[in-house]
This record gives sequence, structure tokens and C-alpha cells, in this order.
Amino acid sequence: MKSSNPAQLAEELSAGELRDIWPILALDERLVGFRLLARKDAEDFLLELPASDQAELLLALAPGERRSWMRLLPPDDAADLVQTIPEAAREELLALLDEPMRKEVKALLAYAEDAAGGLMNPRYARLRPDMTVDEAISYLRRQARERLETIYYVYVLDEQQHLLGVVSFRELFAAQSTVRVRDVMRREVLTVREDQDQESVSRVVAQQDLYAIPVVDAENRIKGIVTVDDIVDVVQEEATEDIQKFGGMEALDEPYLKTAFGSMVRKRAGWLAALCVGEMLTASAMSYFEADLARAVVLGLFVPLIISSGGNSGSQASTLVIRAMALEEVLLRDWWRVMRRELAAGLALGSVLGGLGFVRIIMWQGVFHSYGPHWLLLALTVSISLVGVVLFGTVCGSLLPFVLRKLGADPASASAPFVATLVDVTGLVIYFSAAHLLLRGTIL
Amino acid sequence: MKSSNPAQLAEELSAGELRDIWPILALDERLVGFRLLARKDAEDFLLELPASDQAELLLALAPGERRSWMRLLPPDDAADLVQTIPEAAREELLALLDEPMRKEVKALLAYAEDAAGGLMNPRYARLRPDMTVDEAISYLRRQARERLETIYYVYVLDEQQHLLGVVSFRELFAAQSTVRVRDVMRREVLTVREDQDQESVSRVVAQQDLYAIPVVDAENRIKGIVTVDDIVDVVQEEATEDIQKFGGMEALDEPYLKTAFGSMVRKRAGWLAALCVGEMLTASAMSYFEADLARAVVLGLFVPLIISSGGNSGSQASTLVIRAMALEEVLLRDWWRVMRRELAAGLALGSVLGGLGFVRIIMWQGVFHSYGPHWLLLALTVSISLVGVVLFGTVCGSLLPFVLRKLGADPASASAPFVATLVDVTGLVIYFSAAHLLLRGTIL
Repeated sequence: MKSSNPAQLAEELSAGELRDIWPILALDERLVGFRLLARKDAEDFLLELPASDQAELLLALAPGERRSWMRLLPPDDAADLVQTIPEAAREELLALLDEPMRKEVKALLAYAEDAAGGLMNPRYARLRPDMTVDEAISYLRRQARERLETIYYVYVLDEQQHLLGVVSFRELFAAQSTVRVRDVMRREVLTVREDQDQESVSRVVAQQDLYAIPVVDAENRIKGIVTVDDIVDVVQEEATEDIQKFGGMEALDEPYLKTAFGSMVRKRAGWLAALCVGEMLTASAMSYFEADLARAVVLGLFVPLIISSGGNSGSQASTLVIRAMALEEVLLRDWWRVMRRELAAGLALGSVLGGLGFVRIIMWQGVFHSYGPHWLLLALTVSISLVGVVLFGTVCGSLLPFVLRKLGADPASASAPFVATLVDVTGLVIYFSAAHLLLRGTIL
Repeated sequence: MKSSNPAQLAEELSAGELRDIWPILALDERLVGFRLLARKDAEDFLLELPASDQAELLLALAPGERRSWMRLLPPDDAADLVQTIPEAAREELLALLDEPMRKEVKALLAYAEDAAGGLMNPRYARLRPDMTVDEAISYLRRQARERLETIYYVYVLDEQQHLLGVVSFRELFAAQSTVRVRDVMRREVLTVREDQDQESVSRVVAQQDLYAIPVVDAENRIKGIVTVDDIVDVVQEEATEDIQKFGGMEALDEPYLKTAFGSMVRKRAGWLAALCVGEMLTASAMSYFEADLARAVVLGLFVPLIISSGGNSGSQASTLVIRAMALEEVLLRDWWRVMRRELAAGLALGSVLGGLGFVRIIMWQGVFHSYGPHWLLLALTVSISLVGVVLFGTVCGSLLPFVLRKLGADPASASAPFVATLVDVTGLVIYFSAAHLLLRGTIL
């Protein structure tokens, strides 16, 4: 901004400029900026904001000003906005809408936020099958002036709203004027059910490269459409949830800096505490081997190396399998294929790490003479344990997501830290057992 | 399928049925199924397949059959397809295209696969600014019969292809017939540069809920458009890459089951080996405290608990910050805000875990008398170490992505296992230092 004089600013501020500085503005500054936009620009600008920003801005306006902005929103966006504000304030905003729109929004609010019904827009372009192409085009021309989500995909319905077919505006446009809609429409329409989970809706849209998909009820009556721009948000949201679960925490529902401190700490503490309690089993396992440890302190030196190698290979395998499951690259019935692959991978990776461990001990022995007369047996113990631990971690990490999915749980719960904790205890058992076999009679 | 008689099948198999069973079919079965489709269905079906499946199918056809299918693809899809097959076979497929199309595809192949230019379609609908709305609509009606990616966003260009504005087909359609295009078009057009990274392109499209965005060169000449259906794929691809990095491996470029075993093991072994070498520092750190360990073996029992708690809290914090950075919820300049938040969070989380550790030791002491006469000091040592380690892990994990970004590296490299390894060594130092302070003169 070249000047701080508001009158001058008024002529200078464009929607693009405001968009650029938006993230760093406080609410009152946002309000000033928003008021400086020309009405048409302001409308476009508001429509492009995420629901939580829209809500913040709307509530910051004087009650008298809110109505016209609220009425600007299409019903699905209005429902999203209303969902971001506290229950108490919702009725007041809903009261600003006209009666039919309020009904539509309330119907949308009844759907779970993460179901197809909660994602859809109930306004879509529609035609009857016996219209001619010319009639259809001029009918659409009238519909284009209303606030439809898109006129580019047009759904052909019978009188009871049953979905008969779909035709793209472009196909209609390129067809001969006198042909009937029923003869240009495609009858095979991919649809989703209104209660279908948004993750599975997004998979259909992404895999088939669709721009829009109709949402139908059990009787194949169309309820609305979901468009691909909403799907981009869903894909991003779901990836964020999965990533946060991988990181060992409950998914935050809001951006990091907007999440209240208390709720963030609670979501993180739950998992960390659970992992910590799980990890206490290592203290019990270690107690079990306390006598060995007292006799051969040198064994203790490699405990962190052994358990973290198991943990790392386990989290690698589980991350890989969970993501492949989320993208449906791997299905439940593929478990045995995955298992064979991971057995082989675990053996290969274990050999690499075992080799490294062996070299490390031999080198240190050569330079520092750190490990006493039985260093070779010690090196063998550590490197065989590494093979075992990495193999076990890899197999565990890849198998666990299948077990969880089979039990009906979210495979993403088999997150890296969870697998690592599981593998840590076993890693200790593997290590001390190998030591018993190889070192008994020497240092043990 | 109700029958195995091919003639009957021919009448029965629809594109939808083939789509459902596609993932479980072998290549030769896919070919049979594909050949059973009506020509129009087969065309739609082919267009919806991912590039690698298209390539596989095309190469399985007799050379004489390939031409018509290859020519069906729009230039950006043809370029994607060509990129999935070995260099040697590319020329042969390119030769099937007509001259202008081959030029377009070759121009696209020159862009990096993950740049805007590699994502765009060079065919888009265009208008001149001085056309009337009626002229524009009938001009578009002619363009609609060609293979354009979309006619729904129309770009207004001058004679040198400079981008002057954009108008949606719908706005044009709803406008008065005699108005000029220049008077209905929007002049403020969001664009991306041809060499812009696909991740940043997808951010613009996702944040602004766009259906298409024009790609321009340094002189604002339009080169093509990127549509939102391609962006869904990019968002998914980038999330997968990030998730795989979080899991501690190089990103695989292909679906899990399609990645060759050798290349998968190599991508995983590199990271695991690096982490293992890093983790060897723990063996050095432990050697440093070997004398303490020999005197007080009981200290060794809690080593896995301490280091894994540090690792878990570190990976939690880094995962959270890296994802927030990827979504641009957190920018480089926010580092201090994040740091203060994480300091407080680390202290809170550390207190929870420290408390748990304290209770665990007291309970076991009460039941099993495991920890000798100085159990209370031991409990204090463990719980203070937990506070310190969790605090340190949290701060490290959240700071490291900022440091990497500042250095121009990918913040996602500060993956959970990397942070965990870093924190492990420090965790040992914190633990043994606390032990020195609290236990000196008793068991140490």
C-alpha cells in the first residue's frame, strides 16, 4: 500500500492486494481492508475465503450489514460457515436467510460434516429428458442467472427427482438443436450416497478425474452435487489428519496457530502418555535382564541403537502400508503379498544395518580398544540382533495396519510411534536372547 | 459377470462393470474386457484411466490399433502417458500423433514433470476483447467441438497472446448479447508461471477454490491452463511424498505394489542406514557414562523409556510444524510464535510424562521393592529427566523445520525418525546429568 490515507486507499486497494496481505492482518484490519473493496470485488473476495474467515468477518460486521453478505453465500458454504461458529450464535445468522434458503441450509446441517451430504450443494442444473437441445440451452440460460454451483454438468431427472442421466453443457452445446436430451445424455452416471464418507467420495472423484458427482439417496433420487473444488479441500484435510496421526497425536481440527493451546496440549498429551505407559514395559523387560546387565555393562551401551533401529524400520513399514491403504493401492486381501515383500525387505534392510553395526564395533575396537577381549562375539551379538530387530520391526509395522483394518479400526492408528513402542520391548528381548546364546561363558 | 461366454459378455459388459473389476484383472484380462466395450464407452473408459494404466493397455494392443487410441488423448494426458514408458519406446508412440499434436506433446515433455508447465494443457478456449457476447458464444460453440480441456473458462487475449482477462462461460451466457467481451471479462486474473513448482500451484488453486488457472510466461503470454482435476492428483501425490518422508524414507514415485523391490529397498535402506549411523552416537554417549552404569545398573533400566519419550515428543512437534508449513498455515516469520507455544507445550507435556514416570516407580517400589533404598531419589531423577527430555524434544522438533526451510532445504526432511535420533543422544546426556546431580553420594 503506497499511502496510509484511507480515502486514497479506497481507490487503490484491489481484491488481489488484500488477498496477499490477508494472512498477516488482525481482524479489525481485515474489516477495514474489506470495506475498502468495491462491492463486486468484495463479493468475490468473501466467496473465496475459507468458512472460518468468512464467519469471523461476518460476525465483526454490524448486525444490520450482515444480511446481504450472508445471502450471498450458496447453501453449502452457508452451512459450512454456520458450523464454524458457536451453537448459540447460529440461530441469529440463520434468521438472516430467506425461508427456502434457511430450509436448505438446515437440511445440510443435519448431515454429518464428513459425509457426502455435508459436502454437497443442493442447487444444481436440471433438465427433463424430453426437452430438445435448444429448449434445454435456453432453459439453462435462465438457470445460469440463479446461484447454482455449476451449470456445466446438467442432471436429467424424472418427475420424482430420480436421476436418469447426465449431460455436460458442452455436449449439449455441440449437439444438434432438435435432438432430445434423452438422446445425448449419458445414462451411466457415477453417484455417491448421501451418507457416504467424504474420504471415499474424494477417492471416487480423484480416481475418475470428475468435476462433479451427484449425491443420491437409497432410491436414486438426487439430493445435490459435490464439486471437485470441495474435494481438493477434503483430500488436503484427510492427509493432514493422517499425518498428524502418524506423528503420534489426535488430529487437530483447525490450523496449528488457530488451535487453542489447551485443546492442542490435550490432543498431544493423550497419545504421548499412552506411548509412555507402553514404553514402561521396556523398564520391566530391562529389569528382567538386570543381572545380565550388571555382569556385562557393555551390553547396555547398545540398547538405544538396537531399539531405535527396530523402531525406525517399523515406522517406515507402517507408514508405507497405511498410506498405500488410504489410497487403495493396497487392499485387505493383499496382506499376504505385502507380508512376503516385507519379509524380504526386512531381511535386506536388517542385513545392511547389521553390517553397519558390525563395522562400527570393529572400528572402535581397533581405535579405542573399547570392548574387551570378546569384542568379536559382541560385534556378532549386536549385528545379529540388528538383523532380527529390523526384520521383526518391518514385519510388525506392515502387518499391524491390516490387523487394525480387519478389526474395523483406522489403520492410521498403527502410527510410527505406536509401532516403535511395540517393537522396543521385543527388540530388548531379541537382543538379550542373542547375547545369551553367543556370550554365555565369556562375559555373561 | 454372469457368464463366461465371450459373445454374451460382449453384450453385457459396461464401462462401469469393467471399472469395478479393473484393479484385480491381469493385463491380458484387462485387454479382453476393454475390447468388449462399445467404442464410445471404451473411449470414455480409456480417458479416465491413470496414465500408467493407459500406457500398459496401449502397449498391449497390436501396433496397428494404437494410433486411433493415442490420438484420442488430449496433449497433457498424452505427455503424461509417454512419461510413464521407457525412453526407447517413446518415439514409437509419439510417431502415431499428427504433426501439430506431436509438437505440442514434445513441448510439454520439455517441462519438468512437477512444474506448472508439466501439468498444463496447452489447449484452452480463447476470445478477443472486442467480440460481442453473441459472437463469442457462437465462436465458442465451434471451439466446443474441438478437444479443449474446458470451455467453461475462457481467456481473453490480444494478438501476441498476452492475457487480458478471463470470463466464465456462464457469465458470458448470462450477459446481454450486444455487450463486448472486454466489458464482461474480469481483468484481475490469478496466474501461475510456467516454471512454478506444482506444490505451490496446487496451493493457489486449493486456497482460492478455482476450477482452472492460466499458466503464463515472464511476459504474461498464456501457455496453457491447469485444471482442478489435475490438482487433486497433485495434492494427493505431494501428501504421499511428505508422509513417506515422515516415515523416514525417500519418497517412492509409484504405488507400493508397483515399485520394484530393489528400488524400494534402496530408498528405504539409505535413510535407515543414515539414522543407524546417527544412532551410533548413543553408543558413544553411553560409553561416556559406562562407569555410572556399572555402579548403578538400575539407571540402565530407564534408558529406553527416557529416550523414546524424547523421540516421541520430538516427532510429534516436527510433524505438526512441517504439515502446517506445507499448508502455509505457518510461515518462516512465525518461528518465534511457534517456539513460545512449543516451549509451553513441551513443559506441559513433560510434566504429564514426568508425573507418570514418578507414579510408575513408586508403584513398582511399593509392590516389588525393585529399586533399593534410594527409590525416591531415583523416581525424582527419572521424572525430572522426562520433563527435560520432552521439553528438549518438543523444542528441537518444532525448531528444526524452520532451520531447514531457512537453509533452503525441504522441512519435511526433519522427519520424525531424524528428530528422534537427534533427541536420543541429548536425552542420554540429560538423564545421566540429572542422575549425577541427584544420586551422587547415594548409588552413584
